[in-house]
Amino acid sequence: MKDITLKEIATTLGISITTVSKALKNYPDVSAKTKQAVIDLAQNLHYTPNSFAVNLRTKESKTIGLIIPEVMHHFFSNVINAIIDEAEKNGYLVIILQSNESIDLERKQVDLLINKRVDGILMSLSNESNYDDHIQQIINRKIPFVMFDKISKLASCSKVIINDQKAGFNAVQHLINIGCKKIAHIRGPLNPQNSIDRFIGYKKALEKNNIPYDSNLVYTCDKVSFQEGYDFTAQIIKEHPDVDGIFIITDLAASGVISYCNENQIKIPQQIAVIGFSNWFMSQVISPKLSSVDQPSHEMGVASFNLLLEEMNAHRDELPFTPRTIELETNIIIRESTTR
Amino acid sequence: MKDITLKEIATTLGISITTVSKALKNYPDVSAKTKQAVIDLAQNLHYTPNSFAVNLRTKESKTIGLIIPEVMHHFFSNVINAIIDEAEKNGYLVIILQSNESIDLERKQVDLLINKRVDGILMSLSNESNYDDHIQQIINRKIPFVMFDKISKLASCSKVIINDQKAGFNAVQHLINIGCKKIAHIRGPLNPQNSIDRFIGYKKALEKNNIPYDSNLVYTCDKVSFQEGYDFTAQIIKEHPDVDGIFIITDLAASGVISYCNENQIKIPQQIAVIGFSNWFMSQVISPKLSSVDQPSHEMGVASFNLLLEEMNAHRDELPFTPRTIELETNIIIRESTTR
Repeated sequence: MKDITLKEIATTLGISITTVSKALKNYPDVSAKTKQAVIDLAQNLHYTPNSFAVNLRTKESKTIGLIIPEVMHHFFSNVINAIIDEAEKNGYLVIILQSNESIDLERKQVDLLINKRVDGILMSLSNESNYDDHIQQIINRKIPFVMFDKISKLASCSKVIINDQKAGFNAVQHLINIGCKKIAHIRGPLNPQNSIDRFIGYKKALEKNNIPYDSNLVYTCDKVSFQEGYDFTAQIIKEHPDVDGIFIITDLAASGVISYCNENQIKIPQQIAVIGFSNWFMSQVISPKLSSVDQPSHEMGVASFNLLLEEMNAHRDELPFTPRTIELETNIIIRESTTR
Repeated sequence: MKDITLKEIATTLGISITTVSKALKNYPDVSAKTKQAVIDLAQNLHYTPNSFAVNLRTKESKTIGLIIPEVMHHFFSNVINAIIDEAEKNGYLVIILQSNESIDLERKQVDLLINKRVDGILMSLSNESNYDDHIQQIINRKIPFVMFDKISKLASCSKVIINDQKAGFNAVQHLINIGCKKIAHIRGPLNPQNSIDRFIGYKKALEKNNIPYDSNLVYTCDKVSFQEGYDFTAQIIKEHPDVDGIFIITDLAASGVISYCNENQIKIPQQIAVIGFSNWFMSQVISPKLSSVDQPSHEMGVASFNLLLEEMNAHRDELPFTPRTIELETNIIIRESTTR
């Protein structure tokens, strides 16, 4: 019965059965006009159960997918919070997947979301990912797509970011302004763009202030953990006892730096001034209170969802959409760890 | 064409069109045998597009819904993390919704998940909820369902919990053991079961140690925030300067207690010993390090998903399933804030 109807639709409209089938599955290579004609006729012939037909007509699942490196990260919890709330307000459900910083898992998750026919995808890349095939696949299939925070510069999609270079520069300039002369940097892994950019900001600030760059003062995290911050500080103190400032890729690792210094009677900020990045909640609770670069996580979630919504609406109405990049402002929050 | 087929199936099997329709929609009041017969015949008649038919045959969407009070809470981030990972391993996607502690929102979210035909629902109740209509609806519809952490004792569904009374008792007994004589309790709101039980544990420990209970020493949080911990401590010091121990409903509020004491030269633990609840990550980083009741959040996520999976599998195979309650162990983690 199914095939008879497909054939009937094809014959009536003078198109191939393949085209009818593709139109019903909403393939991008069938014109909007043909799709509508096929859907209308299929409806008249009661070809499909209503729910399926409605789905085809509106082409919406009212569900979006969100892939992030890890839920437990304070910054991402904040972003998720904002995205779920915005989605809720606009009648969307959010499927959340975490890549655990693995490109293999991320690839699988993109496939799952595409098969689930989500209306759009929001994504912050794993440390292993860049402009890889699975990202290209989303873009090639014209699925509404916004990358945020950890993005690929090469991807031609919408992005919501901060200017990590500028923010890193400002953090290190602040250390220099309070008198630091030998500044170490505990950086993130080598691949992620935000880690690269914060490092470049560090280098540029040294350069601008005529402080020679010394690669021995740069320590590279693998997991960006509390423990790495703790261990690298022990190493810094041992290898470079005259270091008087440390700029750390995240507040989590920076809290490890503070913990090591507290336990080893190294005075912050008198002996070593410390500045982190992301301004998570606990930075104002630990002792000494941690100076940090405020990353607007809530704003980033709101902006990311709304940019995706714009593209999903354009997609639904078959209107053109040009990807945009939104750059959010960051601020240095000065607390005890850099107040000399 | 649709109705003709329905009629054909009904006539062939000697049942009503309503029963055919119900069977295809997987209504619980049609027997498994009838459902299978209807589905088989519908298949032979090519009644439904394949994807829909597959869905009916397997009756699975391979998606579950998770409703929690708030994503940003460290405890829930940990639980989500475990649930997503377990779901992933078992081929399930997770739609996450946050009730923001509102029963109205929670009600709407349950409806959304039911309409989305998720295979199961995991839920931790908002502060406003108990055994309300939306919870009853999930159970009446026989949707696989597990409540965790913030549960309703009245609901006849599977649950994963800790023994909050016992844990609260142990925390206060620990304060008494180190010499506290006048112990205040900063408790959670009046409705949630875990808040009630921790408070009962506090009372029972006093009683067991012949310390008279004084309701003036109990301070009730509305939001269970850092700020409330901070403000209540100011109030405690003013109203009861001889208080020498405080048991606080969560580490977040306890970090407010520590912050107030640090800023006002009140020595922890010499003047006031402090113990929190949940053992979130930052308790080992703040100064003084915070003693806490360790709540096994990761374990809770793993146990909740696997209990749900068991019920979903039983549901799929139309086997009986009896709801179970899993009680996880808690431990007191002793740190500087109670080491005299």
